[in-house]
Amino acid sequence: MLVYAGSASKYFGLKLAKFLGIEYVSVETRKFPDGELYIRLGKEPKGETAVLVQSMYRTPNDYLMEYLFISRTLKELGAREVIGVIPYFPYARQDTRFKPGEVVSLSVVLELLEKMCTDRVVTVDMHLHRVQDIEEISKIPFTNLSVMKEIGKYFRDRVERGNTVVVGPDEEAEQWAKVVADVLQAPYMVLEKVRLGDMEVEVKAKEEELIEGRDVLIVDDIISTGGTIEATVRKVKERKANRVFVACAHAILAANAEYRVFHEGVEELVASDTVPSPYSLVSAVPVVADYLKRLRG
Amino acid sequence: MLVYAGSASKYFGLKLAKFLGIEYVSVETRKFPDGELYIRLGKEPKGETAVLVQSMYRTPNDYLMEYLFISRTLKELGAREVIGVIPYFPYARQDTRFKPGEVVSLSVVLELLEKMCTDRVVTVDMHLHRVQDIEEISKIPFTNLSVMKEIGKYFRDRVERGNTVVVGPDEEAEQWAKVVADVLQAPYMVLEKVRLGDMEVEVKAKEEELIEGRDVLIVDDIISTGGTIEATVRKVKERKANRVFVACAHAILAANAEYRVFHEGVEELVASDTVPSPYSLVSAVPVVADYLKRLRG
Amino acid sequence: MLVYAGSASKYFGLKLAKFLGIEYVSVETRKFPDGELYIRLGKEPKGETAVLVQSMYRTPNDYLMEYLFISRTLKELGAREVIGVIPYFPYARQDTRFKPGEVVSLSVVLELLEKMCTDRVVTVDMHLHRVQDIEEISKIPFTNLSVMKEIGKYFRDRVERGNTVVVGPDEEAEQWAKVVADVLQAPYMVLEKVRLGDMEVEVKAKEEELIEGRDVLIVDDIISTGGTIEATVRKVKERKANRVFVACAHAILAANAEYRVFHEGVEELVASDTVPSPYSLVSAVPVVADYLKRLRG
Amino acid sequence: MLVYAGSASKYFGLKLAKFLGIEYVSVETRKFPDGELYIRLGKEPKGETAVLVQSMYRTPNDYLMEYLFISRTLKELGAREVIGVIPYFPYARQDTRFKPGEVVSLSVVLELLEKMCTDRVVTVDMHLHRVQDIEEISKIPFTNLSVMKEIGKYFRDRVERGNTVVVGPDEEAEQWAKVVADVLQAPYMVLEKVRLGDMEVEVKAKEEELIEGRDVLIVDDIISTGGTIEATVRKVKERKANRVFVACAHAILAANAEYRVFHEGVEELVASDTVPSPYSLVSAVPVVADYLKRLRG
Repeated sequence: MLVYAGSASKYFGLKLAKFLGIEYVSVETRKFPDGELYIRLGKEPKGETAVLVQSMYRTPNDYLMEYLFISRTLKELGAREVIGVIPYFPYARQDTRFKPGEVVSLSVVLELLEKMCTDRVVTVDMHLHRVQDIEEISKIPFTNLSVMKEIGKYFRDRVERGNTVVVGPDEEAEQWAKVVADVLQAPYMVLEKVRLGDMEVEVKAKEEELIEGRDVLIVDDIISTGGTIEATVRKVKERKANRVFVACAHAILAANAEYRVFHEGVEELVASDTVPSPYSLVSAVPVVADYLKRLRG
Repeated sequence: MLVYAGSASKYFGLKLAKFLGIEYVSVETRKFPDGELYIRLGKEPKGETAVLVQSMYRTPNDYLMEYLFISRTLKELGAREVIGVIPYFPYARQDTRFKPGEVVSLSVVLELLEKMCTDRVVTVDMHLHRVQDIEEISKIPFTNLSVMKEIGKYFRDRVERGNTVVVGPDEEAEQWAKVVADVLQAPYMVLEKVRLGDMEVEVKAKEEELIEGRDVLIVDDIISTGGTIEATVRKVKERKANRVFVACAHAILAANAEYRVFHEGVEELVASDTVPSPYSLVSAVPVVADYLKRLRG
Repeated sequence: MLVYAGSASKYFGLKLAKFLGIEYVSVETRKFPDGELYIRLGKEPKGETAVLVQSMYRTPNDYLMEYLFISRTLKELGAREVIGVIPYFPYARQDTRFKPGEVVSLSVVLELLEKMCTDRVVTVDMHLHRVQDIEEISKIPFTNLSVMKEIGKYFRDRVERGNTVVVGPDEEAEQWAKVVADVLQAPYMVLEKVRLGDMEVEVKAKEEELIEGRDVLIVDDIISTGGTIEATVRKVKERKANRVFVACAHAILAANAEYRVFHEGVEELVASDTVPSPYSLVSAVPVVADYLKRLRG
Repeated sequence: MLVYAGSASKYFGLKLAKFLGIEYVSVETRKFPDGELYIRLGKEPKGETAVLVQSMYRTPNDYLMEYLFISRTLKELGAREVIGVIPYFPYARQDTRFKPGEVVSLSVVLELLEKMCTDRVVTVDMHLHRVQDIEEISKIPFTNLSVMKEIGKYFRDRVERGNTVVVGPDEEAEQWAKVVADVLQAPYMVLEKVRLGDMEVEVKAKEEELIEGRDVLIVDDIISTGGTIEATVRKVKERKANRVFVACAHAILAANAEYRVFHEGVEELVASDTVPSPYSLVSAVPVVADYLKRLRG
């Protein structure tokens, strides 16, 4: 087994190879002034299983195209199997045709991976809305791991034991909040998101008393523009939370998200290294490595 | 036959539909703050031939990915045939493996088009280096048209009749220079490019007398960083050219190319509309339209 | 008098110098991989008046900073006077403090120009909202020229004489519509923009009969995201306009503006060359040149 | 004393305020689709000292312009003093006119800070080439702090005690290597950079024996395109280094720098948080905070 990494995940790939104790093959990736990519694999994968690591955040089209170039070439150069490790998987929202004529981007991306010789996909905390099981729409094996337990462990010594509540901004976030709360042996709750034109969050009345005077750890899968987190921080502050912490798997932080996350006052923002940032204080590498080890048998 | 256009070629698509007298179907393309595309076709192509226009300049990965999303969806929504009109075709240089481990990008791009349901490709003045015939490596019909005659016509009233020479910067440019010279009934020549570390151009001695005192029209297929044109302008000025004009099919103009083209003194820069710019004074639309008409029979 | 041009306006500068019959001094501008600019003037302006041309569209901070670097250096290297020709002038909207703590960007930009040794500013069709006279807030002479007459002339042979109406999308656009209508000897009207959450346009009832069956030429100063134009096209089409044309001074065309302008069906989009694009079919160069000639006396 | 932070340094500003135990004032910064900035200060600084934190990496023109907008407005809104904390200070290389006509960018940037109401500048490990003392060319007090001791401390438990050598890629890096070596009580050396066309590094013969079998910690101030580090890693590997670590103050990591740093095999890349990245494992906040405390008296 060899680890190859695209330009989005050089560091993740290096850590993964070290964790697995297998070879990290350098991949040269450059952009010409005209925007075209130049890619060269440091070693041919003849007869080996190639693990190709490429997260697809912020410039997903660029990173996906680079992935496809490499994946196709790995198979051409003799890889026995290509396992795509895509720590942040893009285009998860557009999983169905809401209006006539829409492109169902998720389906096209999955088909591109398969057609360009990827045999298996591994990702982390992919946000599946309507699709309960991604394996239903993917022709190749697709595994969705989670870094939420690691996020819970990170906060064990950070929040006040016995006086902390984990909050998910909406019902879709309940799955993440529950896992983190279990690790912390803390209660959890979700807010009810009521959209009024823009972003407005209303707390269910019966659970309000859970917030007052406690440390609050807000947990979501993705922070994109920061609007949901901003509204949630405001709400728990109104409910007289003690300290407020924010955690997510994927800190995309588009546009002015950092302003929106921090401006109401937050102790700390913690994310995983699926999207590299200074907030990448929890690593998804061990979770991915464990899975690949089991796969290798 | 319906015309669909991606975000790189809205205007080209509109002109093409008008020229052909067929329907232009609006395609909505937006980018979310996280970099993902939202795409919606204004009309389903059920049973029709769909012409999908998307040039792939400057941000080729973005435009190619958008193309693939649309092409795949056109077929899914019932298009009888998908004809990809790609006025500027990217990744033409990397058409073979020069060093072990390199990605042969051109092959992968061609395979992506085919696998994502494009039935036929039409492009304009594609720069084929080693591959003499693109049809050899493309599984789907691939047609390479030329806008060079139109460029020649544009200059008929601009340069001095009987006192003009067309110059190609190097031997590869001979094919373009010849066509333009034929239209202008002018002589042509190519310089011999001798690379000395960076960019250096040496004129073949025997043809020097052709330049002195004449209008010079430098013709190439692509202007990317402008280095070749800059050196060529300098050289023909040293050889005492009268006025110097520059023309190309594709004005990519990456980095500081405009500075490099203009700073030695140039009368005019003229390009086609395959890459939209204020220099797009010649249109490739009639050439493409004529071809599509013949195809339709 | 010498003409210098920044990287946003190489072509405009070249045309301006040619029109004025004065020297165009090449300015080398490059960006290092770390994002810093390298700038070198082709000739020192000792004792001369330096005209510095730099439009500030799309990446206004980059182009403004480049301008300031050059302007400051021209004075340091002996320019008698620095005249800033800024065909598209940015930050015109934020001309007052609407809410406490806001930056009044326009004032800061004007102060930067003055402090960095610009002696006089010339611009074209700057969108002044509340400020009636820019000279009131600028410490240096500031001249706002207009390209609207040239736009009117362009359409003389394009629209049906005696059966055309010029439409401004809102009351602020009345000033531009009037000028274009005068040139065309056509009537003009403005729509009443009623914002309902997003963008909604309501036609004043009494003027509806002006639209039906006529060619409509929609005129505005700027097309930014295209929302206003999109709504206006839809409205005049509902009112049974014959053909619809769109014209503006500055085609910024941010985000998916081209889609929004064209998707309801438009004959042609015409803009000036203050913002270079394939729609730059009208030139602001003669207007600017005439003014500079008068200034020189 | 109040802390304001621009969009480049929200997190640094937050940590700085917390470290100093003073108020962090939220600054809203958004970009409109046309590229213009919207900025609003969360609180007016009337009569207070305003610390404005804005690092200027990767898109230095954008971040500098945003800084100038805020700095000017802080003074307008009553700040008694504006202290600019610019963790990464750009344009340090162009500190003199190497060729006629060049812009001396560093001088212009310093003048812009002063003219736009900054009273004092604090930065970290600024790369001063020819200028021995920045105070000579800055009209306002300018302090250059260093995070190198903190980098040394970080490696105390990472490298093998008594068997480590600190290496500076060239003579300019000797200053950084020495400080880190002192903290580690290790020897240090610098390579002699001999540029042969591109990047080539030659080790001084007499010191070669220092490398073989030892842990090597390569230290530089900035990693920009990674070329210098790539060559240095290759050289110390040829000299049979044991493990190789890389550290710098500012991890700019432009173009394909991550590939170049890692591909020859490196244990770890460590940088400070002046440029936020997943490698920001050492914080410059305590150094800056200590200085500001002393300043406050």
